[in-house]
Amino acid sequence: MTCALGNLGADLPQLRPSPKMSSSAPNTPLAEKIPVGILGATGTVGQRFIQLLEGHPYFVVAAVGASARSAGKAYKDAAARSWKQITVIPADVASLIVQTCEPENFKNCRIVFSGLDSDVAGDIESAFLKADFAVFSNAKNYRMDPIVPLIVPLVNTSHFDVIAHQRKVHGLSKGFIITNANCSTTGLVVPLKALQDAFGPLSRVVVTTMQAISGAGYPGVPSLDILGNVVPYISGEEEKIEIECSKILGGVTADLTGFSNLPEMKVSASCNRVPVIDGHMESVMVEFQKCPAPSIEQIIEALQSYTSDAQKLGVPSAPEHAVVVMKEADRPQPRMDIMIGNGNTVAVGRVRKCNIFDVKFSLLSHNTILGAAGSSIMNAEVAVAKGLI
Amino acid sequence: MTCALGNLGADLPQLRPSPKMSSSAPNTPLAEKIPVGILGATGTVGQRFIQLLEGHPYFVVAAVGASARSAGKAYKDAAARSWKQITVIPADVASLIVQTCEPENFKNCRIVFSGLDSDVAGDIESAFLKADFAVFSNAKNYRMDPIVPLIVPLVNTSHFDVIAHQRKVHGLSKGFIITNANCSTTGLVVPLKALQDAFGPLSRVVVTTMQAISGAGYPGVPSLDILGNVVPYISGEEEKIEIECSKILGGVTADLTGFSNLPEMKVSASCNRVPVIDGHMESVMVEFQKCPAPSIEQIIEALQSYTSDAQKLGVPSAPEHAVVVMKEADRPQPRMDIMIGNGNTVAVGRVRKCNIFDVKFSLLSHNTILGAAGSSIMNAEVAVAKGLI
Amino acid sequence: MTCALGNLGADLPQLRPSPKMSSSAPNTPLAEKIPVGILGATGTVGQRFIQLLEGHPYFVVAAVGASARSAGKAYKDAAARSWKQITVIPADVASLIVQTCEPENFKNCRIVFSGLDSDVAGDIESAFLKADFAVFSNAKNYRMDPIVPLIVPLVNTSHFDVIAHQRKVHGLSKGFIITNANCSTTGLVVPLKALQDAFGPLSRVVVTTMQAISGAGYPGVPSLDILGNVVPYISGEEEKIEIECSKILGGVTADLTGFSNLPEMKVSASCNRVPVIDGHMESVMVEFQKCPAPSIEQIIEALQSYTSDAQKLGVPSAPEHAVVVMKEADRPQPRMDIMIGNGNTVAVGRVRKCNIFDVKFSLLSHNTILGAAGSSIMNAEVAVAKGLI
Amino acid sequence: MTCALGNLGADLPQLRPSPKMSSSAPNTPLAEKIPVGILGATGTVGQRFIQLLEGHPYFVVAAVGASARSAGKAYKDAAARSWKQITVIPADVASLIVQTCEPENFKNCRIVFSGLDSDVAGDIESAFLKADFAVFSNAKNYRMDPIVPLIVPLVNTSHFDVIAHQRKVHGLSKGFIITNANCSTTGLVVPLKALQDAFGPLSRVVVTTMQAISGAGYPGVPSLDILGNVVPYISGEEEKIEIECSKILGGVTADLTGFSNLPEMKVSASCNRVPVIDGHMESVMVEFQKCPAPSIEQIIEALQSYTSDAQKLGVPSAPEHAVVVMKEADRPQPRMDIMIGNGNTVAVGRVRKCNIFDVKFSLLSHNTILGAAGSSIMNAEVAVAKGLI
Repeated sequence: MTCALGNLGADLPQLRPSPKMSSSAPNTPLAEKIPVGILGATGTVGQRFIQLLEGHPYFVVAAVGASARSAGKAYKDAAARSWKQITVIPADVASLIVQTCEPENFKNCRIVFSGLDSDVAGDIESAFLKADFAVFSNAKNYRMDPIVPLIVPLVNTSHFDVIAHQRKVHGLSKGFIITNANCSTTGLVVPLKALQDAFGPLSRVVVTTMQAISGAGYPGVPSLDILGNVVPYISGEEEKIEIECSKILGGVTADLTGFSNLPEMKVSASCNRVPVIDGHMESVMVEFQKCPAPSIEQIIEALQSYTSDAQKLGVPSAPEHAVVVMKEADRPQPRMDIMIGNGNTVAVGRVRKCNIFDVKFSLLSHNTILGAAGSSIMNAEVAVAKGLI
Repeated sequence: MTCALGNLGADLPQLRPSPKMSSSAPNTPLAEKIPVGILGATGTVGQRFIQLLEGHPYFVVAAVGASARSAGKAYKDAAARSWKQITVIPADVASLIVQTCEPENFKNCRIVFSGLDSDVAGDIESAFLKADFAVFSNAKNYRMDPIVPLIVPLVNTSHFDVIAHQRKVHGLSKGFIITNANCSTTGLVVPLKALQDAFGPLSRVVVTTMQAISGAGYPGVPSLDILGNVVPYISGEEEKIEIECSKILGGVTADLTGFSNLPEMKVSASCNRVPVIDGHMESVMVEFQKCPAPSIEQIIEALQSYTSDAQKLGVPSAPEHAVVVMKEADRPQPRMDIMIGNGNTVAVGRVRKCNIFDVKFSLLSHNTILGAAGSSIMNAEVAVAKGLI
Repeated sequence: MTCALGNLGADLPQLRPSPKMSSSAPNTPLAEKIPVGILGATGTVGQRFIQLLEGHPYFVVAAVGASARSAGKAYKDAAARSWKQITVIPADVASLIVQTCEPENFKNCRIVFSGLDSDVAGDIESAFLKADFAVFSNAKNYRMDPIVPLIVPLVNTSHFDVIAHQRKVHGLSKGFIITNANCSTTGLVVPLKALQDAFGPLSRVVVTTMQAISGAGYPGVPSLDILGNVVPYISGEEEKIEIECSKILGGVTADLTGFSNLPEMKVSASCNRVPVIDGHMESVMVEFQKCPAPSIEQIIEALQSYTSDAQKLGVPSAPEHAVVVMKEADRPQPRMDIMIGNGNTVAVGRVRKCNIFDVKFSLLSHNTILGAAGSSIMNAEVAVAKGLI
Repeated sequence: MTCALGNLGADLPQLRPSPKMSSSAPNTPLAEKIPVGILGATGTVGQRFIQLLEGHPYFVVAAVGASARSAGKAYKDAAARSWKQITVIPADVASLIVQTCEPENFKNCRIVFSGLDSDVAGDIESAFLKADFAVFSNAKNYRMDPIVPLIVPLVNTSHFDVIAHQRKVHGLSKGFIITNANCSTTGLVVPLKALQDAFGPLSRVVVTTMQAISGAGYPGVPSLDILGNVVPYISGEEEKIEIECSKILGGVTADLTGFSNLPEMKVSASCNRVPVIDGHMESVMVEFQKCPAPSIEQIIEALQSYTSDAQKLGVPSAPEHAVVVMKEADRPQPRMDIMIGNGNTVAVGRVRKCNIFDVKFSLLSHNTILGAAGSSIMNAEVAVAKGLI
């Protein structure tokens, strides 16, 4: 890799963002950290939350919630068979007693991170919102709600501006709910935002995804379906990409009461599952409204120099680069490049002319870090930085 | 395999077209079959030729050619380590002595099938052409030559009409050269041709491929590069798709001296390698010139009812269906569907509306049967049926 | 697949034994075939039964049974999502209405093949036995029952001799129950039997398995557990191998009322799951009681020349060779060799001296053909040949 | 994982030993570090050396050697296509000019680490030895030389005692050569040493390996050979295991002029390649000379409490635990457990009774860290600690 990643090795604790290291903030004493709860703590996303929050400078996991079947057990016992991370369960979480996902069991928490499945997330998250928690959700249920921000932290933290209105509508003093995007949407919107910021509105985006199995959770995809195979379908995935992009890349209305989507930007997605553990690859084509379109060199420059608000705020999980542009002909690749920026950077490669649109490229993003729990955590860090918590 | 499995092949039609069965032609006595030679016989494509020609009703393998390193050895010894088919080497080929690829070593042959690498195919195929052989080549060298047909047998056998002119130019009496297309092009043009025949010219085609490792030959792709990984690049592949489609889907000039390409049809390809053994998956988007575009139902009907000239001629390798349209939400898949039509049918699925173009769908084709040796053989069958041999 | 591929199966014998071809028996008219039922028809083993019985010369599938959830639906609908074979559902079975697994629903059948899970197989198979059906079971429940034969058809069809006693005990006129062995046991005992027949009793057998994922059924092994991984544990598998070998390789008591196991033969198994679709590999070490032990050449000769009773009886599924010994240094391999003998032959390779025991070798057997449904069917063929049905 | 790894997460820079962190030694200023050279620097093992030595507290890479084809290029250019590590090339090494592997090009180095292929390692390492370098070699060439130590640093650092004699024989003042073991041997001997130390000599060891593809280097294993497959053969591997164990687990002669092997310990190995990136799994059976044998509980205790000399010396790469015993039924697994102890710990699981020997278990070790470059580096650290450098 010839891009400016010279110090990547140096800060490669590799499996989690290293807020202690990459942030200049002094290490917060444990007693002063913000206690957070994890909803859906035994699931794949819940596990990532727990892993990524180990040693976090702002937050400490103080409660874990799961279904009634797990409730009452120590987390290490409830998650024993399903823990599929390559680091061990952090000792302080291992001994927490799993609770059912009811607000009264999380009274010691200021924030809850939700890794709940969508079939239960709606009611539970709503209950926590009403109980005045700050809810950061990975579930799809409220993403398109007109007063719920759908925030990819490297893209549209300006959408936090709707929180005041949301609180007012729901009669809350300190609670609110923020959702983050579908994993395959997340990787896509970061370079799209870079291009939109540099060159104005996009008119058309074609994306074909090759998505990792970890995106389906555990047990998730049966091995007989994916070993040596490609499955050209992921239920609901194409629709999510097509509608979420428009909200994320859009703005906030002038009165800060909602979102101004981008109906003029057309997105067409085709989603495939491939036998990769972590890391969604996407083949992308983009057309600009602006004519003539920027050159390939200008596009590369815009991608490389893009800096999100989360980075400017210096929150702990924000990577040095929101986007890295790889120059090798055959990169990025999931096996090699998935941990760039501790899993919070989008790797882009093969930026080249397209016969039909203005540019095409490949991108790779970590579907369970930036694409799930990592985004939620970075969103929460931004909320802290913005004084919302 | 040296054990006594000589007759295993006999009850394993699975991996080659079964001309004996699907053709109504009575079995030709061996003495009357057309003797053919295989150039590049020890390579992956050469092996497929040998496998697919076992028991062929028209052709019998009479000579095998490879590099000087292999020449002089019995084929079974020369190919011992590299034979990667799941059927055994046919007994009659196993004992053939490998020759260097020079015309004088193939005097007993009327036809040569070339599975040569492109770095040597140019000179060798040219020498065989000058020596008045009928050459059927998988190599890319002459595909874009203005008097060399580039034929996908389920698409454009009308391009054989240029042979008379080609012979005249080269001063040949019975020889000629026919190329078949790149493996990823081949799967694509079959449904495109069905749509073009039914609804008129296409204006734009976007294709993102997920290609099998067998397409790179042996040893080919190192396992460290592809296990649990996606490689978003295959050298030269996108260019091949983009230029070959135009020639294949175009016609023959009125004076039968060349080809009328389709410059108005724009094709944009993005090619990826995935950890699949056999079978190229492609996510495709198509826009018609015709407005309004046909409905999804009309498109499905056109794909299903498409019948190529090769099928109408009833040549032995022609599948019952050129295209099958699968109705399950998650098909086709390489592991399950690759042998439909004995590897000579293109499986299409997920035919649906596109936000940007008129239709999008997924397709699967067998990259080393229809996409390579199978096409060459079917082309030769068509040449026989047309009286060119 | 719902498209018009009804006759695809007809020229794709590859995935089932091809009794029509390999047997000299003339094709039995359908009306005279023996009607059979499949219990657990929608599961992985049930599917293999249906696939392998298509066009069978003795048997015709007349009824299919599954859980109450599937009952009442056409088989093609009940199995639509779980059918994971690479051939399509045979047309005559596709339209059968799925029944619950009760004897009154199978009155038109003479035989039932059971692919039931062990948690329900016990009661259901018992009910069918009491209703005087001939039951051929893949389940483990009755394998070690003292009057139930545990038969690997290439090894111990002599155990059918206990049927008369079994009928007497259960008061049956024509019914009986035969079990076949665990998939990893099955591949092992075939060469062990060849060695035992040639050189007398074995004293010690060490086996380390590398087992395919299809052995765990569908959905079975989660892809997150096995992609790029090895799992050194399969619940209950080692115990099954260690106890089943002794019964299968043992004889029948002199009074034909039970089995004389081989307690003096010690077996130690270590079982691993690997990312392979079909085909169990086993590294085996054997020590003979006989001293001096036979030479490696004698062992190879004994393996190659071994002919089981099923082969001598000429039943349709019996392969030409019970064991093939491959001479290449790096074979057998699942991807290349799994279909030798249509999946009913055990491939052995690397027969060589061992520093500790007398010989070591690698073997490969098809876990869902010879290792499951194929054995049951061959057992039923033997029962027919022996006049038990 | 319930074993005592609570602080694993905390020191998980994951892809290299973290001497800076795990050692209590203050960070050595660069100018005082020992300059080392890497022979075979562009190969897979060479790359691991470079990766693992980044930021090393004792050593700094000062020269890199490769074949004449690479010589003269900057390392980053010479290794551009073959670099397959998931961290980037360290900046200081990237700009080093690759040298041919001749001693005069490494005059600035005190130590050379050799990742050379065995076909060239013999002559080159010999030349460096004669030129009085301290040579730490991964190649097999001198492993069985009667005056060359074969050292697995977690097992037999006592073999350094022969260095004085080796120097005398070769007339060297400060140079010497140390080899480390074959990757599959290395994982095996660590628990064997623990058992031997606790319970006396072992009489018989059976090992069946399931080895990762990275062990074969790059390009190494073709993907067509291993995807969805098992290859039951690795050239020369079984012999290496069988002979190396005896030397490593043996002692040094009383006069410190050679090694006392263990001919009475019989080892039988069966080696298989599986589709795993990193991490060799081994199914092991052990018999003790001692009778009665220790109990399973005693064996587990001995494995867990084993502490090697390298650990006692506190060298930077020494892991906290030489062996961890996992209690879950299905562990260790390569995908989950390969980085325990930063890749320098051997994970053992499924310790249980064996029907034939005294105990059987599964083990996992990192084949390119502990099994290759990591051992060499730890050996060099021990040499420093022992005052040999």
